[in-house]
Amino acid sequence: MDLIRSTTVFLCLSSIAFSQESMDFDLDPDLLPRPLIIEFSESRLKNMSDDILMHCTSWRVAVEANNLGPWKTIPNECADYVKDYMLGRAYNVDLEKVSKESGIYANSLELRGDGMDAWVFDIDETLISNLPYYSDHGYGLETFNNAQFDKWILEGVSPVIKPSLKLYEEVLRLGFKIILLTGRNEDKRNVTVTNLTHAGYHTWDKLILRGENDREKSATAFKSEKRKEITEEGFRIRGNSGDQWSDLTGTSSASRSFKLSNPMYHIP
Amino acid sequence: MDLIRSTTVFLCLSSIAFSQESMDFDLDPDLLPRPLIIEFSESRLKNMSDDILMHCTSWRVAVEANNLGPWKTIPNECADYVKDYMLGRAYNVDLEKVSKESGIYANSLELRGDGMDAWVFDIDETLISNLPYYSDHGYGLETFNNAQFDKWILEGVSPVIKPSLKLYEEVLRLGFKIILLTGRNEDKRNVTVTNLTHAGYHTWDKLILRGENDREKSATAFKSEKRKEITEEGFRIRGNSGDQWSDLTGTSSASRSFKLSNPMYHIP
Repeated sequence: MDLIRSTTVFLCLSSIAFSQESMDFDLDPDLLPRPLIIEFSESRLKNMSDDILMHCTSWRVAVEANNLGPWKTIPNECADYVKDYMLGRAYNVDLEKVSKESGIYANSLELRGDGMDAWVFDIDETLISNLPYYSDHGYGLETFNNAQFDKWILEGVSPVIKPSLKLYEEVLRLGFKIILLTGRNEDKRNVTVTNLTHAGYHTWDKLILRGENDREKSATAFKSEKRKEITEEGFRIRGNSGDQWSDLTGTSSASRSFKLSNPMYHIP
Repeated sequence: MDLIRSTTVFLCLSSIAFSQESMDFDLDPDLLPRPLIIEFSESRLKNMSDDILMHCTSWRVAVEANNLGPWKTIPNECADYVKDYMLGRAYNVDLEKVSKESGIYANSLELRGDGMDAWVFDIDETLISNLPYYSDHGYGLETFNNAQFDKWILEGVSPVIKPSLKLYEEVLRLGFKIILLTGRNEDKRNVTVTNLTHAGYHTWDKLILRGENDREKSATAFKSEKRKEITEEGFRIRGNSGDQWSDLTGTSSASRSFKLSNPMYHIP
């Protein structure tokens, strides 16, 4: 899968740069948390055998189709594959696809006009990207380190995921209420607001983080419970966007859910 | 994506040959409904641009992740891609992956021993394959023709999907009750039983087809209703295997569902 042909690959420009604009922007290296340009050896992908490509694509599709049980790290043999997928064009093509399909669906809906039609967004790897962190940690090859990841989150520099910002602007324009539902702990509220704002997100009805009593709950349980509370308030959750199946499944699910690609980690 | 290198490709031997054995078998061309060996021009895949490969892979992943709205035919530009995927090794690799993951999950479960732990299987593109039919109809490029497809079904020669037969044998061995739930109409019961038996499936607790009153229902509605009846009988649906999201979603869902790959058609 010769997705990457040139010796120099630009790291997903459209998804890792801070920008207040949803459609185009100038690249300002001072705003970027990590060097944007990553050097690839052209030979690396060529050295990946067809068997490995097929096996790792199959694994990635199984992740996206929710066919895998809980997993803690990506398969060793897929380390180069996942890196290439994330840094090449394919990841962004996938994100643009899901953003477009979500937008088509959102536009097909008739809103009741009472302000209770809602769209739920997850945050990490949905609205903003932790790819700079994962690029320093093997793209999911290393076991998750909570303390290190917290340190990264507290920097508040996770870049925007542009296709999601575009969808966000569209559902806002259509009149949906925006509800942000994240597995981040409540003590990250301020940095999360700052980071989201820098990334271009400006309006939401609720920002729900994990409280003290939610710590031990699985993401599926926590998010189901919160969706239940949201619907009990009278909201109709028409759409839900997330990069984890635990953002989308469980109870009180949205009328329709959209799974953003993420082959780097799994949250049960 | 050079998945296919040789000029002659064997059409997924393990998934289109009739066999009563689950692990290995001899190829008997007399038993096969269509010529097994399909000629490929090596240049065809090489002529597929990286852009098309990436676009069509993204489309296929969107299908598998349930991100697409209803669709009637595969994208024109992905005709070669889907054909290559179905006839090359990748489709079978994906089917083996989901069979293996399903088996791991099935083995992890504790059965209550009361004979009420059940596994629900869809039939078409799940237990048996209509690939010979679709190979005559553009692999999903042609609009679905109900009369022609019915004619094919009535031949009763849909070959076994070997990785699914393997899973079936395993869940039977573990003590699950097998429930077959298909969108085929009730008038296909006899040919379905004959076809399944020829394909190697020998035991099931229920074979549920669409009755007269189910004709107008979507697959999601019909299958949800039937799962509800099954659970009301006291069965616990621990697992569910299907190639369509409408086999798996809706209400009274299984504890865990497995999505088999199918980029050829969509049933809402």
